[in-house]
Amino acid sequence: MTTRPLPTALVRSLPATVPFVGPETQERERGRPFKARLGANESGFGPSPRTIAAMTRAAGDMWKYGDAQNFVLRTKLAEKLGIGIENIVIGEGIDGLLGLVVRQYVETDQPVVTSLGAYPTFNYHVAGFGGRLVAVPYEKDRENLDWLLDAVKREKAPLVYLANPDNPMGTWWDADEITRFIEVLPPETMLILDEAYGETAPEGTLPEIDVSRPNVLRMRTFSKVYGLAGLRCGYAIGEAQTIANFEKVRNHFGMTRMAQAAAEAAIDDEDHLTWVQAQVEIGRQQLYRIAEDHDLSAIRSATNFVTIDCGRDGTFAMNVLKELAERDVFVRKPMAPGLDRCIRVSVGKAQELDIFADALGDALGAAKAG
Amino acid sequence: MTTRPLPTALVRSLPATVPFVGPETQERERGRPFKARLGANESGFGPSPRTIAAMTRAAGDMWKYGDAQNFVLRTKLAEKLGIGIENIVIGEGIDGLLGLVVRQYVETDQPVVTSLGAYPTFNYHVAGFGGRLVAVPYEKDRENLDWLLDAVKREKAPLVYLANPDNPMGTWWDADEITRFIEVLPPETMLILDEAYGETAPEGTLPEIDVSRPNVLRMRTFSKVYGLAGLRCGYAIGEAQTIANFEKVRNHFGMTRMAQAAAEAAIDDEDHLTWVQAQVEIGRQQLYRIAEDHDLSAIRSATNFVTIDCGRDGTFAMNVLKELAERDVFVRKPMAPGLDRCIRVSVGKAQELDIFADALGDALGAAKAG
Repeated sequence: MTTRPLPTALVRSLPATVPFVGPETQERERGRPFKARLGANESGFGPSPRTIAAMTRAAGDMWKYGDAQNFVLRTKLAEKLGIGIENIVIGEGIDGLLGLVVRQYVETDQPVVTSLGAYPTFNYHVAGFGGRLVAVPYEKDRENLDWLLDAVKREKAPLVYLANPDNPMGTWWDADEITRFIEVLPPETMLILDEAYGETAPEGTLPEIDVSRPNVLRMRTFSKVYGLAGLRCGYAIGEAQTIANFEKVRNHFGMTRMAQAAAEAAIDDEDHLTWVQAQVEIGRQQLYRIAEDHDLSAIRSATNFVTIDCGRDGTFAMNVLKELAERDVFVRKPMAPGLDRCIRVSVGKAQELDIFADALGDALGAAKAG
Repeated sequence: MTTRPLPTALVRSLPATVPFVGPETQERERGRPFKARLGANESGFGPSPRTIAAMTRAAGDMWKYGDAQNFVLRTKLAEKLGIGIENIVIGEGIDGLLGLVVRQYVETDQPVVTSLGAYPTFNYHVAGFGGRLVAVPYEKDRENLDWLLDAVKREKAPLVYLANPDNPMGTWWDADEITRFIEVLPPETMLILDEAYGETAPEGTLPEIDVSRPNVLRMRTFSKVYGLAGLRCGYAIGEAQTIANFEKVRNHFGMTRMAQAAAEAAIDDEDHLTWVQAQVEIGRQQLYRIAEDHDLSAIRSATNFVTIDCGRDGTFAMNVLKELAERDVFVRKPMAPGLDRCIRVSVGKAQELDIFADALGDALGAAKAG
């Protein structure tokens, strides 16, 4: 065997897993494109025309590094949210920020609490920095706040992850419940409150912004309703010192100047946001109806996707997924026991939902026959 | 004192340093913009018109996540370089890739070898992952290959960093010397060969590509001659298993779709590359002359910047830098003892170099008077 540099003990222990297989990867493996791209909770309604125009204007400036302080973007967000720019850190999507938080708070072998079946990329980061994942089950397709709290206390966990609204189930807790959870959380435990889908949730879902608590990081993104997943731009909101700590570990010149330009324009275009929010609600209703038309039950959703109970076990739902892919429909599904009976369909343009609707009956039939 | 989550021992030990203060930060502090942006080794010649057109076409697609495998971009690079796509990993600029390499190969307190005054962002990552930096001096403004090797052997370092051509001095070693260095390097030691400025170096500077060695990672970027610094796109070339290991730690969906689209177009536009290379050579000659006109000696450069010896000590050169900033010229300077007598001026468009030339005499005079 060739002598070669030895990765660290931690890296040697890691599998080369990918949290998600991307649709392009699947398309290459299939040898043909999908007709409906409804698996990654992207926003088929696109970035706003004003945001596209801002990108076009910015293109010629891409020879310059982006502003390492993300000053203009943070200023706009701070004004919108009624907080200071010292309460906001910008990162390469929530994915990037999750990695930075795990890196900051988790020593090797320390426990990190999440729900069994929640965001796999968070789990990937926990493993990647040597943390030990402690996952509590969902209850009735919702993350269970009491169980999360119990696990935090029992394990003395430095970090806990909670998405509200939830991915992959689309369920949510009211702001009051979240606030109560925050109030009883041990102050030594950092909470990541992932609000990637906050803009599509019913009023009363997101707690008031409170940047006085050092142990709460709320994460938001331009990847969903703003239609900028391809530009990797998210942000964390928190107490000033908690935010300042990111300066010790973040890649200061890591944000693209294009993401900055696009996100700045996107914030200003409130009409587009309102329009997308309305489209998402229309799409959710359409997906509920499609499920009903096939005698399936759709879980009510606060997100830009709808999770549909296929009515049997995980193997059956997986077969439905495969049969949909055969019919050129890209969707994904929860994998954890209990949740795995479902498939998860992103809200897309009406024509893509129609393609899904057309394919679903045949896919169910084939899955039942198979 | 409020009880709050405790960062890891390592993170608590880190200062909140920023490797570089960006020009936008300085502009905000100054209260006015620079007239000549010549400090960050960006390419003022811009991305090519075809690349800008590709960005414009891609803007509307930004609602989609980028391809996690960077398949098209890697395929184009592999074809250009005559290697396999399994020999290439794409990252968020060389900065991002450097962090991933340190994370893969450096355990806490392990020694990492570099040159005293070499790339600060690399040092930032070494500190950030708990490594111990061992820095050998430059000799006659070049990184000294023998001293680097001695330090690697003495310390049994798992990782060594070498930039060829060098930043911040602009000097270089011929391919033969680099190849000899690679051949005698202990096979357990990973070499990062940073070739960010490879495209502006004289022929015979870059060794032939050889992806058989598991302990060499060559890093290149679209930030310099391709004029895409603002899109954060770099790549590492290496042996297949060495490249595969990145899958364990990289942020799989971290690349922007825009960077993918732009870099793909930039590779195809060889005419623009050739034109920029010629402009860089013209600019270097112009900077050599500007230095001579002020009785300063310019170090011959293989990069898109020229490092100018201000002829006195580091304090004097710092004053020259400050006086240039007073005159709205953004440049930077090396900070390590011995190198710090210099300022470093990026090649820019002729009109920006004229602004620098006009300001330099006054700045030198003021620095001498001060």
